[in-house]
Amino acid sequence: MKKLALLTSGGDAPGMNAAIRAVARTALYNGLEIFGIRRGYQGMIDGDIFKMETTSVSNIIQRGGTILKTARSKEFLTLEGREKAYRQLKQHDIDGLVLIGGDGTFKGANVFFKEYSLPAVGIPGTIDNDIAGTDYTLGFDTAVNTAVEAIDKIRDTAEAHDRIFIVEVMGRDAGYIALNSGIACGAEDILVPEQASDINVILERIGNDKRRKKLVNIIVVAEGDDFGGADALRIKIMEHLPELDVRSTILGHIQRGGSPSYFDRVQASRMGYAAVNALVSGQTQVMVGLENQEIIYTSFDHAIKQHAPLDMKMLEMAKILAS
Amino acid sequence: MKKLALLTSGGDAPGMNAAIRAVARTALYNGLEIFGIRRGYQGMIDGDIFKMETTSVSNIIQRGGTILKTARSKEFLTLEGREKAYRQLKQHDIDGLVLIGGDGTFKGANVFFKEYSLPAVGIPGTIDNDIAGTDYTLGFDTAVNTAVEAIDKIRDTAEAHDRIFIVEVMGRDAGYIALNSGIACGAEDILVPEQASDINVILERIGNDKRRKKLVNIIVVAEGDDFGGADALRIKIMEHLPELDVRSTILGHIQRGGSPSYFDRVQASRMGYAAVNALVSGQTQVMVGLENQEIIYTSFDHAIKQHAPLDMKMLEMAKILAS
Amino acid sequence: MKKLALLTSGGDAPGMNAAIRAVARTALYNGLEIFGIRRGYQGMIDGDIFKMETTSVSNIIQRGGTILKTARSKEFLTLEGREKAYRQLKQHDIDGLVLIGGDGTFKGANVFFKEYSLPAVGIPGTIDNDIAGTDYTLGFDTAVNTAVEAIDKIRDTAEAHDRIFIVEVMGRDAGYIALNSGIACGAEDILVPEQASDINVILERIGNDKRRKKLVNIIVVAEGDDFGGADALRIKIMEHLPELDVRSTILGHIQRGGSPSYFDRVQASRMGYAAVNALVSGQTQVMVGLENQEIIYTSFDHAIKQHAPLDMKMLEMAKILAS
Amino acid sequence: MKKLALLTSGGDAPGMNAAIRAVARTALYNGLEIFGIRRGYQGMIDGDIFKMETTSVSNIIQRGGTILKTARSKEFLTLEGREKAYRQLKQHDIDGLVLIGGDGTFKGANVFFKEYSLPAVGIPGTIDNDIAGTDYTLGFDTAVNTAVEAIDKIRDTAEAHDRIFIVEVMGRDAGYIALNSGIACGAEDILVPEQASDINVILERIGNDKRRKKLVNIIVVAEGDDFGGADALRIKIMEHLPELDVRSTILGHIQRGGSPSYFDRVQASRMGYAAVNALVSGQTQVMVGLENQEIIYTSFDHAIKQHAPLDMKMLEMAKILAS
Repeated sequence: MKKLALLTSGGDAPGMNAAIRAVARTALYNGLEIFGIRRGYQGMIDGDIFKMETTSVSNIIQRGGTILKTARSKEFLTLEGREKAYRQLKQHDIDGLVLIGGDGTFKGANVFFKEYSLPAVGIPGTIDNDIAGTDYTLGFDTAVNTAVEAIDKIRDTAEAHDRIFIVEVMGRDAGYIALNSGIACGAEDILVPEQASDINVILERIGNDKRRKKLVNIIVVAEGDDFGGADALRIKIMEHLPELDVRSTILGHIQRGGSPSYFDRVQASRMGYAAVNALVSGQTQVMVGLENQEIIYTSFDHAIKQHAPLDMKMLEMAKILAS
Repeated sequence: MKKLALLTSGGDAPGMNAAIRAVARTALYNGLEIFGIRRGYQGMIDGDIFKMETTSVSNIIQRGGTILKTARSKEFLTLEGREKAYRQLKQHDIDGLVLIGGDGTFKGANVFFKEYSLPAVGIPGTIDNDIAGTDYTLGFDTAVNTAVEAIDKIRDTAEAHDRIFIVEVMGRDAGYIALNSGIACGAEDILVPEQASDINVILERIGNDKRRKKLVNIIVVAEGDDFGGADALRIKIMEHLPELDVRSTILGHIQRGGSPSYFDRVQASRMGYAAVNALVSGQTQVMVGLENQEIIYTSFDHAIKQHAPLDMKMLEMAKILAS
Repeated sequence: MKKLALLTSGGDAPGMNAAIRAVARTALYNGLEIFGIRRGYQGMIDGDIFKMETTSVSNIIQRGGTILKTARSKEFLTLEGREKAYRQLKQHDIDGLVLIGGDGTFKGANVFFKEYSLPAVGIPGTIDNDIAGTDYTLGFDTAVNTAVEAIDKIRDTAEAHDRIFIVEVMGRDAGYIALNSGIACGAEDILVPEQASDINVILERIGNDKRRKKLVNIIVVAEGDDFGGADALRIKIMEHLPELDVRSTILGHIQRGGSPSYFDRVQASRMGYAAVNALVSGQTQVMVGLENQEIIYTSFDHAIKQHAPLDMKMLEMAKILAS
Repeated sequence: MKKLALLTSGGDAPGMNAAIRAVARTALYNGLEIFGIRRGYQGMIDGDIFKMETTSVSNIIQRGGTILKTARSKEFLTLEGREKAYRQLKQHDIDGLVLIGGDGTFKGANVFFKEYSLPAVGIPGTIDNDIAGTDYTLGFDTAVNTAVEAIDKIRDTAEAHDRIFIVEVMGRDAGYIALNSGIACGAEDILVPEQASDINVILERIGNDKRRKKLVNIIVVAEGDDFGGADALRIKIMEHLPELDVRSTILGHIQRGGSPSYFDRVQASRMGYAAVNALVSGQTQVMVGLENQEIIYTSFDHAIKQHAPLDMKMLEMAKILAS
């Protein structure tokens, strides 16, 4: 193995730049050449590929986003697209790939490997923390902290006005962000995609709070909850309790950006370092993961399966603590 | 003057607690008794009034929201409501008021004074910075910094994906937050209520950027812009340029909360201190303001008039600097 | 078990308030009475004990410090001191203790239990993350993030001036904060108490960087490093390389304060919840800990032993990535 | 005027990059060429000069430090140094200079102009806010906010332990940072270079607080205070009150770095824009300043004079509010 290429794919996540730095520096330290591919698989197809030096990754460990940019590529889903991509890589004599992204990224890598046998190692980078085979995906820690800082601010104004606030956080299929930000902010209710939500239970809880003259309520809802998000839930509550002052807010894309937390930077460094070492030592089609604080490797096949279920006991605990 | 009462009214703003602390401590230093009224004029009507000590305001200077809570009161708009309020104040022998809020607050004070001749001094507390007779209203500095931190994060992800992002900030009638956060974030376009927005100009600008391969665009729009906010603008742009990846996000109530900036805390301290000194020295029906960094006093009559126009030359400058 | 008492002891750490909230709410949920003891063991001796309600812990989950205050008590090291403490507890019919603190706290609890057989459960609260029997101690995550934000700022000015900056972080016996903040900030060197530091190695590295015209260097040093901290190291470097612009800064107590991160709040919530449940189910003289993301229990005897060694391979990795 | 050059000099300050961006973009908009000089006057002597394009300043408005780097140059104080510098500028046909820095920077510009008649306009960039002819110098707002965030954290731990904390902030000759951060944090005492500090007054105040059982005290001291900083003051207090737990911390260089606040970014944008417009319209040897929120111009001769005195009434107010 002499020449590696590196890309970021799927939604961006804080820590991707720290992983890029670690991959580049570790490759160079091992005497390899390292190439950056811009805009994920689409850039691979388009040949948007450049040689990286140690200074290419200076001063990026603390930056949000990804200097390699990211994109979703429909063309890579086609046979022709992947063929183009392969030819671009061969032009640079690339003999190994490091892929930072989510399960879509690793699915693509699996298909590509079957066709062209180019070794690839993956790094889980998604704020949702919902990939099997790892306790942690890059960006989650920062994203939850960002959500928590925002909800803390909303609580200030909720308390000043005795309002109920419904805050929608990211998570189409997974409630990790909602669960953790909800507990951390002392939310009175937390709604996640993994559990059916019952409007009557929510209304009863609000009713109880009213009787106790507890007029402030923060409800954290994942975007993938079956109510359909914060606005839908607000309308439903106000149908039943029109006298209440209920507001909703969607935190949105601020959760993806920002300078990564120390934890994201350290894990990104470890994962990037481990990914290159894995490729060099002959591993392929594996994702670097974290288990019990140690680096482990999982096959792409396993990683793209459904993630482990949310710990529902944490939801129970949250309700007890917010009572 | 022996007994003052203090309330916060209207939308909450960072710095209100710092002003409450300054009013209470200055009153006590001057040998006065000081009473807090909870929930603004409504609490005045309801008699939600309590005696404050120096420790009542310990450790609040750094907190968002308002420990006195705030509310809008329809009852205070009625003759009966104001009569009830006056009787509550008389029960505590209150002979002076400090009112922290916006122009609605000062309008109410004007009517109340005509009927009951109770001296009152106001402190401008609103994130919109749109009150006449002062260069500054409490909360503006913090709110713009909050917006800027959020937009910085959104730019990370906008750059990673080459997206156009439309960010809606607060400001129903005034574009101060939009103008200042837009300049500070290098927004490619800034839309404010004070100026008619032309979709063709916006589209042409985006088109120019496309030709220049500048694919990232941040458009900051005040909620009171004539397009009707971020979502409406996004739909309009995508009608004309369906191939673009355009997203919108509404920052919402996070702009009201959070620990106040040094500037908000210092100005709140100065204004609270000046408000009590003004009452003690016999002033009434005036709002404390800031002009050329000095404390000034303005009649409520003047303060509730329309604010000074936005500096449109700043908008021009913003476009030149973002080009 | 009917009446619990709760204290914080040793150095304060972010997340202690979140743990206090969880202990109080879980105790009340279980039908127990809960008492707060102010200023740790000293307050126990002095009888500074008060009954807590659910509202006693409202709105504290996001606050740094500890509402119960903390102190080190020499008197509790004496037989008489502990006897006084026991009598105070008996006056309130306390039949169980929750202790939030470090190994000194748990040592005290062990002695106290031998004498008075009062059941106690501990929660590890110290920013140093150096207690055996748990992967995590409350406050570490926040403290490292605080250090990282500060070092990021110092790097700005280091780069502007091509300076070498030595930053001293907390950690008298343990290098966890130094190691993790150093990796996260891309520090060129990281000095920890667990490893002998060689001035010649440091100088050689700086010399290499000079030859490579890399003039910015951040060296992170734990306060317990054998050089004796940042200032001592700065003087030593300047003796050998007087032409360099070397500065030192001691981050100090800012690392203890601040609003806790989501991770500290969630783990504090889990640990507080688990501590009460452990007491109720008959456990005693154990510390709640975290292992592989699950709650575990460890005897105080084990917890007060020396912590696990730092992962020295992480130091090697840090050097490769910063090269 | 066809070719401008731009440098940053003296200590770095947040907002310098925003000013660099504004100068470059405004110059290019006006059809001028713009050159960046690295490392201030020293880089001018060394010919470290490069042509800037609009993309040279992309994505820097939010960054601390200065992409042009800064340095102090002894060589520029000599006739030969300045001659070399002039020749370097002539090689690039530079016919105008924009200088971002403090009074040392403008003194140098004055001497240089007398010798070579090269027009120059200055922008005040220093966190100390102590330059005559302007209400504001770039970096002050961010620096005070950074100090305030740090002191807020220290208060958490001060309260938890009932300690007295002495916090040293920047300001060798000027107490602006100390005064404003002290008021904003509710410091019980604020010591500034502009006023003689009396240890007896400080001790009496602490004694009073002890009698009132107010055991937490934050004392903010400017580095240029006549006690000689935080450590010296701590030793002096402990000589007299050895039973107290007094700690000191020096905030140091974190105050110079970090992402600039909105206010610094907006004022930097305005000043950079105004500086180029001033040069183009024939002004020279003037510093751009801010007065009553409007851009004004002041001769370098005036700007390098002593700054206006600190508002001592603010110190009095601070004591009343912290009582």
